Amino acid sequence: MSQIRVAVIGASGEAGRSIVSGLLEQSTTFDISVFVRPGTEDKPIYVTYKDQGISMVSYIPGDVEQLVSKLKNIDVLISAVTATAYDEQIPFIVAAKKASVKRFLPSAYSTVQPPEGVSALRDHRQRILNEVLRNYLPYTHVETGWWYQSIVPEIPSGRTSYLKLNFPVKENAIPGDGSARLAITDIWDVGRYIARIIADPRTLNKSVFAYAEVHTVNMLYDTWDDVTREKVTRNYLKEEEIEEMISKGKAGIESGNHDLQAFANLHVGQYWRSWGIRGDNTPANAKFLGYLDVQELYPDHKPVAYADWVERAVAGEVKSPLA
Amino acid sequence: MSQIRVAVIGASGEAGRSIVSGLLEQSTTFDISVFVRPGTEDKPIYVTYKDQGISMVSYIPGDVEQLVSKLKNIDVLISAVTATAYDEQIPFIVAAKKASVKRFLPSAYSTVQPPEGVSALRDHRQRILNEVLRNYLPYTHVETGWWYQSIVPEIPSGRTSYLKLNFPVKENAIPGDGSARLAITDIWDVGRYIARIIADPRTLNKSVFAYAEVHTVNMLYDTWDDVTREKVTRNYLKEEEIEEMISKGKAGIESGNHDLQAFANLHVGQYWRSWGIRGDNTPANAKFLGYLDVQELYPDHKPVAYADWVERAVAGEVKSPLA
Repeated sequence: MSQIRVAVIGASGEAGRSIVSGLLEQSTTFDISVFVRPGTEDKPIYVTYKDQGISMVSYIPGDVEQLVSKLKNIDVLISAVTATAYDEQIPFIVAAKKASVKRFLPSAYSTVQPPEGVSALRDHRQRILNEVLRNYLPYTHVETGWWYQSIVPEIPSGRTSYLKLNFPVKENAIPGDGSARLAITDIWDVGRYIARIIADPRTLNKSVFAYAEVHTVNMLYDTWDDVTREKVTRNYLKEEEIEEMISKGKAGIESGNHDLQAFANLHVGQYWRSWGIRGDNTPANAKFLGYLDVQELYPDHKPVAYADWVERAVAGEVKSPLA
Repeated sequence: MSQIRVAVIGASGEAGRSIVSGLLEQSTTFDISVFVRPGTEDKPIYVTYKDQGISMVSYIPGDVEQLVSKLKNIDVLISAVTATAYDEQIPFIVAAKKASVKRFLPSAYSTVQPPEGVSALRDHRQRILNEVLRNYLPYTHVETGWWYQSIVPEIPSGRTSYLKLNFPVKENAIPGDGSARLAITDIWDVGRYIARIIADPRTLNKSVFAYAEVHTVNMLYDTWDDVTREKVTRNYLKEEEIEEMISKGKAGIESGNHDLQAFANLHVGQYWRSWGIRGDNTPANAKFLGYLDVQELYPDHKPVAYADWVERAVAGEVKSPLA
């Protein structure tokens, strides 16, 4: 069988690195190339990719005709662009349709939420997906649950500090009373799942929920308590406090303040409300919303287990998402 | 098996009459009630319904708590409200969730289109559907294709004039060159399909495309030529003419002009562009957009055939949609 020719945009970010890594694990199946924004060719990660045999494709953003020619021999185009760059996908969508790309994955890879009215980022993802639908571009929409890497608490001994994300939100925050169930996934499993999904005709023109485990946040913290044998602080956040955080973020952004603090307040606040208060991010809700369940599609795939991951995290042995 | 308790809102309109009629054809299966807006109890159609044994339920629009109590014993709530009343569904959605209604059908029953960016009415339907999703209210979204009744040409002998819709758009209009394929359905089959769909667990939380036949508009006009043995005028409308019609309608509505002419220009123009120029309204596109195909679900259902319908239409024998 000939290789599947896959191109990735946004390959230098957290999800993009996982995706490239997942594809490389099946390197006989995939012929991989990475689209590189002008002026970013020297990023260390791109040098690494080149050393791994990945083709680098430079392009002029927004030049649809050029994109058509660069996508002509691509079977699958995977977008992993960051949230602030979602709209950069639009010329790629138009060009991919013209170039007869056989499948497009819009950037997503996060929690399951209803398509409108719960969070600004999910609404934005839906507008992009609607652009895909309006163009009848074959697609797969993949959400993955909350990442193990996004819910690492600070612990008294400091053994988890090396995994700290530079995101200005309250440490050790637990939305509500911590009793909402949520689906979670090691970010490094995202790419492994995607390598299966894009080679699978059953997932064409569908949404897929690719998660590993389902727990309450309280259960996640119990695991940290057990593994570290330390008492891990739990900062329960009332719904009103999360609403306030969201309002503050919104006000900041509306007053033209595009700093990370406003961004974090609005978007992390909306994620916390969605999975922590509303309880959106579960396999049952994903089914209601039309997603295929990755565990039914690939029962043989054993994702990284959360308890094992916490043990390795505390031992200083897990890769940070931008490693 | 106990009867399915079905309530209909918007039961006096074209789609609503077909739905009630379809349910009545299976009267042993369904216990039917109809929600009646205050002040409209005396409409002749409601008197007819009462004579047919249907329960009339009066309600106060927007009073969610009252709606909850009135929906408590309802299994399936079907909305057939007219496009100008789509937003009136929102309190029903909130109340139906609280009352544990087992399935809601938002008003739709028209052509298949992508969910956003093609027509204002389809966009509006999607916002209502997104409200359903955000509330995790079990639902079925049914589109039916263009109605036989919406594409009746004037013919020289005047034998079709009794079916004329009072809608101020160009007579005998054919979008583009008439070569786009579109799915069509006798409006009186809409209710028959819905009677099957709401009793079918396979259609829960899905979109269904419930159409009868697929033809080009040129083929439909060929049928009129053949049956009438008259030369039926074909007024081909260029894409630019349709765009102009849409712009005029938009401008009219934006200037506060809510007359039927502006409404017809905008919305009929957008429908014609969608099914006649873009070619959205086909079973293949419906599949891409996630719809189940009614002809695969119910291969035994024989919808009214278009050629037969035209013969009966010319003979003066078909019921108008508001009969």
